[in-house]
Amino acid sequence: MDAPPRWLDPEEKAAWISFIRMQETLIGRLSRHVQADSGLSASDYTVLVSLTERGDGRMRFLDLSKRAEWEKSRMSHQVTRMVKRGLVAREECPDDGRGAFIVATPAGYKAIEEAAPQHLEHVRRLFIDALTPNQLNTLGRLSQRILDHMEKQHG
Amino acid sequence: MDAPPRWLDPEEKAAWISFIRMQETLIGRLSRHVQADSGLSASDYTVLVSLTERGDGRMRFLDLSKRAEWEKSRMSHQVTRMVKRGLVAREECPDDGRGAFIVATPAGYKAIEEAAPQHLEHVRRLFIDALTPNQLNTLGRLSQRILDHMEKQHG
Repeated sequence: MDAPPRWLDPEEKAAWISFIRMQETLIGRLSRHVQADSGLSASDYTVLVSLTERGDGRMRFLDLSKRAEWEKSRMSHQVTRMVKRGLVAREECPDDGRGAFIVATPAGYKAIEEAAPQHLEHVRRLFIDALTPNQLNTLGRLSQRILDHMEKQHG
Repeated sequence: MDAPPRWLDPEEKAAWISFIRMQETLIGRLSRHVQADSGLSASDYTVLVSLTERGDGRMRFLDLSKRAEWEKSRMSHQVTRMVKRGLVAREECPDDGRGAFIVATPAGYKAIEEAAPQHLEHVRRLFIDALTPNQLNTLGRLSQRILDHMEKQHG
């Protein structure tokens, strides 16, 4: 890019810094709690939630990478580690050319079902309890607005 | 915990899901752009920003871990990789018992100074441009409120 960067003005910068620090602190703490409570890393947790939240416990590898917004190489390494630990399995589909399914195993279901209630308590304590119901609703609507905006962008 | 989990009600759940999906999508995309534009990983970027944003380019190892909300082992591995690549250096302080300083090298400064303007353009395009100035201000205030709340908690 040859144009000079459009630096953030003081109000934009203050809002961005508050948001990014909050997000880093929240995700850092939740990750450490999940690890301490259940032995799952934040990445294990993300993969198992993605696979199991829609009810059937399986996704195409590419859809899983896209859902997590991870590079394929990162997801591939992560899946390999989780296969070794018995949390997920790869189901190859050589016929249709659309790539393997990744499937949560019974051990993977058990791990996420045990971890989820504790995770939720930390979400409530650190995040939900910080706001009034109206404030939480506002934060949710603004978040959804940003998400909708990002989905219209190409990258 | 023996008490049953306090599941989120539908409005809490909707707000949490919008927030966490927005955050995952935003951080995932920013990380991929930083990597593609500058060759820095998101972790490299976090460390270099932490070291350089206060002007003197150096922090105690423990303060750096705490600032990023990372386990010491994760920060230690990350610093080792960055030392090998010449982006930071370790300065041991055997005398005072308070641990090593981590210092951004000239190459580390150069890397973050080159990466930052592009990073900022992506922040603006994906996040700032999604909201009106009032909405952005509201999001910043709510984020700061959550951050203040978390700082009162022990973990």
